[in-house]
Amino acid sequence: MTTFSADRSYAESLDAADPLAAFRDRFVRHDPELIYLDGNSLGPLPARTQARIAGVIDREWGEDLVRSWGHWMSTPRQAGDMLAEHLLGSAPGQVLVCDSVTVNLYKLAWSMLDARQGRDVIITDDDNFPTDRYVLEGIAAQRGCELRLLPADMDEGVSAEVLAEALDDRTALVSLSHVAYRSGALADMAALTDLVHRSGALTLWDLSHSVGAVPVELDASGADAAVGCTYKYVNAGPGAPAFLYVREDLLPQLRQPIWGWFGQQNQFEMGPRYHPAAGIDAFATGTPQIIGAVAVEEGARLLGEAGLDRLRAKSIQLTSYLISLADEWLAPLGFALASPRADARRGGHVSLRHPDAWRISQALLRAKVIGDYRTPDRLRLGPAALYVRFTDVWDAMQQVREITAEKSYADIPAEQSRVT
Amino acid sequence: MTTFSADRSYAESLDAADPLAAFRDRFVRHDPELIYLDGNSLGPLPARTQARIAGVIDREWGEDLVRSWGHWMSTPRQAGDMLAEHLLGSAPGQVLVCDSVTVNLYKLAWSMLDARQGRDVIITDDDNFPTDRYVLEGIAAQRGCELRLLPADMDEGVSAEVLAEALDDRTALVSLSHVAYRSGALADMAALTDLVHRSGALTLWDLSHSVGAVPVELDASGADAAVGCTYKYVNAGPGAPAFLYVREDLLPQLRQPIWGWFGQQNQFEMGPRYHPAAGIDAFATGTPQIIGAVAVEEGARLLGEAGLDRLRAKSIQLTSYLISLADEWLAPLGFALASPRADARRGGHVSLRHPDAWRISQALLRAKVIGDYRTPDRLRLGPAALYVRFTDVWDAMQQVREITAEKSYADIPAEQSRVT
Repeated sequence: MTTFSADRSYAESLDAADPLAAFRDRFVRHDPELIYLDGNSLGPLPARTQARIAGVIDREWGEDLVRSWGHWMSTPRQAGDMLAEHLLGSAPGQVLVCDSVTVNLYKLAWSMLDARQGRDVIITDDDNFPTDRYVLEGIAAQRGCELRLLPADMDEGVSAEVLAEALDDRTALVSLSHVAYRSGALADMAALTDLVHRSGALTLWDLSHSVGAVPVELDASGADAAVGCTYKYVNAGPGAPAFLYVREDLLPQLRQPIWGWFGQQNQFEMGPRYHPAAGIDAFATGTPQIIGAVAVEEGARLLGEAGLDRLRAKSIQLTSYLISLADEWLAPLGFALASPRADARRGGHVSLRHPDAWRISQALLRAKVIGDYRTPDRLRLGPAALYVRFTDVWDAMQQVREITAEKSYADIPAEQSRVT
Repeated sequence: MTTFSADRSYAESLDAADPLAAFRDRFVRHDPELIYLDGNSLGPLPARTQARIAGVIDREWGEDLVRSWGHWMSTPRQAGDMLAEHLLGSAPGQVLVCDSVTVNLYKLAWSMLDARQGRDVIITDDDNFPTDRYVLEGIAAQRGCELRLLPADMDEGVSAEVLAEALDDRTALVSLSHVAYRSGALADMAALTDLVHRSGALTLWDLSHSVGAVPVELDASGADAAVGCTYKYVNAGPGAPAFLYVREDLLPQLRQPIWGWFGQQNQFEMGPRYHPAAGIDAFATGTPQIIGAVAVEEGARLLGEAGLDRLRAKSIQLTSYLISLADEWLAPLGFALASPRADARRGGHVSLRHPDAWRISQALLRAKVIGDYRTPDRLRLGPAALYVRFTDVWDAMQQVREITAEKSYADIPAEQSRVT
């Protein structure tokens, strides 16, 4: 590889050498000029997913009707095992595709508290994703627990030292994000899990911003449980179902609070009392969303074809290239990096701080560059390795540079994003 | 209308006079010979829904990408208001499309208990749909409440007398199904709600087997809260999101237990503490399923076009015709009616009891008649008024008659259904 240069030809040479370049054509693309750096919010549509969903709707629903439940019953487990194999470093039987991240956090946190009777403290960090903090705040209120909010660094995430200081023999559960939603800071899952285990507590990881972007090694890290969403890097579409993971030997100790018929042993006997199904199926609740689960399967399969190691290597190249351009072009314009500089400490997206970040993000939209804004002053850019080119990064950063230098966002009123 | 005759020409004359006959062509139909009497389990695919979903996937997801959240944010409320207007007899702002029936039952039952502090009894019936019974059993265990199971008649449902006897000043919540899933028995929502209110308790209705089949008058009946599914008579597809309803003046008293970011005031400020949104939005949890919610809109719109009053009139004609044929042909073969005989006491489906019901249901499948089986010995037939013809009922009943008379199911082993 040649040394970094801010010339576009450097980006072109990186694209030419990209072993994953062909995967870009696996996605539906309507506007060839659009640069999409927000797949960390909503991933684009894989062509095979579009065809698969059309088939499920026309043939499995339209033609086979209720008979399709014969195989749909196993779709949530199949999709879970596919995530486990390709993306999560987990043996089969520990991952289920179901509900939303929010509901899955609730089910897991609730049941994990019961598995640590006599302990009454839940720990998370004050910069964790809102739904994580809110769910834990609610459970703490309902269960009479204390919620300890670790002070996180908005750019660098949670440090082991801060966590170590907060842990004690009252700690039942520690819930953290693997990759921070705003900064992209990547936590050391194995090391932090080990720290938590030494205090006798359990860990619940949110993988929403890491699954599909960085290799996750759930089994090897010793993580107790995890949740994650599938509409970001897994490209499963708006509101596709989330997943949850429980380490196999912990499963028998957990009893989740939402007792539904899909979590029932011998469901169709429709028996008088609730007896949870064996294994991860006990975490199912109501009738599963089939179209979304099928999209999860396709998304996991596509990432599996590319291979997480190759994706991670390209992702690091993309984000470090983006940071180099930011240093060169944007620092003089008042931008500062708001993500970890060390490659190993960063997930798949990068945040840049600027007082006018919101207005710049809106001006970028007009220039056909989709990134997003996050409070209070972050421009968040996610160059997903599966379909973003180095020249896309160059072109996008050029736009940021021009828009900022020329203040061409001056006509845009200051206001907040509504984009998830 | 001519008098009942078991001759097929009678069914033909009813079809010829059916003002809703044209709606049958609004559905995708692959096999013109198939008779579908299981829309009470999974409704068929409306052609417009197929086109709308394809558009949402290709243009809103594929082309507009994350920008579509600008309007997707209001889809769950819009779909809820459409159900409210066309199917639920509810003013706007009280219905939200979200999660599953199971999760919605959990959220509502939990918060309704808090609204009746000092009372510690939950009532349901012993023949209520399994997920309803299990969710309430779980909540009773978690909250230290008593769950009282009313003895229901498996064919006739719950009587007001049995309910009246169980109510006392310890009763916080009564949760019942509007239409019983097995027998189709239709409860008098207004009368039972009134009975419950006189004891000072709240009502939580499950409309899964009534919404889209019988007119529901939530506001007029005084019901406090309700849930229901959309993949049966609303024809929104496998695992489409459920809905929930809360009476407007009760809303401020309820605080649901799953505190997620979609239930948060000013969601994208991503503030430090959870402050529930105003109104029904407080019952949202995580990122909503968009494709399913759009299918709910289309399903509600289609039923609205047909009109619930016309649908109910035809539904009563269909089920009473089915019962007449059963009396004439099947009673001599060992079948007995397992649903209320009075039209006003029956929802959209009919159950027939026979010791070999399971095997008969399987033999029917071979003959291209899809009904279903329910424990312990019920053949359940749902002639949905939107797309089932009187001749379909005649043809299906002829098949039941032949299969049973000839015991052509003799080769089928006795075993239980896996169909939802």
